[in-house]
Amino acid sequence: MNLAARQQDNADNSFADADREAVYRAIFTRRDVRSQFRDGEIGDAVLARLLAAAHHAPSVGFMQPWNFIVIRDMARRRAVRDLFLAARQQELPHMAEDRQALYRQLKLEGICESALNLCITCDRRRSADSPLGRWHNPQMDLYSTVCAVQNFWLAARAEGIGVGWVSILDAEALKRLLEIPDPVAPVAYLCVGHVSEFARRPDLEQARWRGRLPLGDLIMSETYGGEGEETLKAAAAGNQVP
Amino acid sequence: MNLAARQQDNADNSFADADREAVYRAIFTRRDVRSQFRDGEIGDAVLARLLAAAHHAPSVGFMQPWNFIVIRDMARRRAVRDLFLAARQQELPHMAEDRQALYRQLKLEGICESALNLCITCDRRRSADSPLGRWHNPQMDLYSTVCAVQNFWLAARAEGIGVGWVSILDAEALKRLLEIPDPVAPVAYLCVGHVSEFARRPDLEQARWRGRLPLGDLIMSETYGGEGEETLKAAAAGNQVP
Repeated sequence: MNLAARQQDNADNSFADADREAVYRAIFTRRDVRSQFRDGEIGDAVLARLLAAAHHAPSVGFMQPWNFIVIRDMARRRAVRDLFLAARQQELPHMAEDRQALYRQLKLEGICESALNLCITCDRRRSADSPLGRWHNPQMDLYSTVCAVQNFWLAARAEGIGVGWVSILDAEALKRLLEIPDPVAPVAYLCVGHVSEFARRPDLEQARWRGRLPLGDLIMSETYGGEGEETLKAAAAGNQVP
Repeated sequence: MNLAARQQDNADNSFADADREAVYRAIFTRRDVRSQFRDGEIGDAVLARLLAAAHHAPSVGFMQPWNFIVIRDMARRRAVRDLFLAARQQELPHMAEDRQALYRQLKLEGICESALNLCITCDRRRSADSPLGRWHNPQMDLYSTVCAVQNFWLAARAEGIGVGWVSILDAEALKRLLEIPDPVAPVAYLCVGHVSEFARRPDLEQARWRGRLPLGDLIMSETYGGEGEETLKAAAAGNQVP
């Protein structure tokens, strides 16, 4: 029996403690990897599992708007890296002046060091004849595609594979390079590969770009800014990494 | 030791087979729940764990743009449900004519039957002074927030809790109802509660609104529409639910 079908047989069952912990572990130890890629191919069986995970994301109206472009060619990857380098130069002056030196030092991509790159796209025409759930919120197809990205990322963590999302790119230039037609949006450009380790904390936290916000401060009751939920906030504070 | 800190201690370790399977099981058996909510409160400890999972999503520039509005008041929920009912009426004529009868029959929300509602928002002003990764792609803060939604959803599945995303809503009307200020976007309106079961297949697949696309058809090589990756496609076909 294949992977997804076998899992469906368990659809009605609850998770044992150890299984629930494993899901949290993937969530809490997932990292946006830029610096720790090491050599080694990713086998087709593993990559197919990751893509199956992405493909089982929720999608508005079950439209499944995604495609997966696997990029291995090093010349093409170097061209994407050139786009990144140009975009980083363009982005730099928009950082606060006292943070520009730190910004320059940050390692923000692993395009050429990773085993492969993956562009996850959203075909905005798909099921356009019956756009269930998209009439009021047409961006829902993009959001569905992001859910696929996050599924891929978490499955990769469970496989010991690192993923980094490169967002410092000019989308139009990327579309030309990957021959992506107009009604299709490149939602995520991912670097995917084996890693030497998963960092204990996010790189940007470690580099003191920003600290993690206290979860309790982000919880509101009934309305935006609404006070209350005190016991929930206290419980949330207990789950915070110190 | 608290949950997230304990998990971080495992950051460098690989996943045992059973743990990896548990992550896939959460991914493959997660459902967009509308019909199977049953009575029962959700304890603050559980809800805090789900919110911690959401809070550990990736975010561009580590900006953590999200807030979590917990909505329990039944009068407010009925008002949201009225927004849904109006929006569904507005959306109906945009469906293909031969699908409107089916659209009318679909159960598309569990706003009042679930234990609570949760609106996950994106504060677009947060870290606006140094928008790392957002100069070229300003929507990245919204995408980060969607990653938080998907983390919440998968953690909920592992806890045996159902989540349904209601996107058939007028966002401006929802903002007024929840007093959400202008620079903040309501990204997801979720129904959250205990369930009688997790359906074996997505509701919209079961109702024959759409079928699942063959994963192999969604894989491309090097460029959009690029042919190749035949062994990967064959491996992907093996993971497909029949």
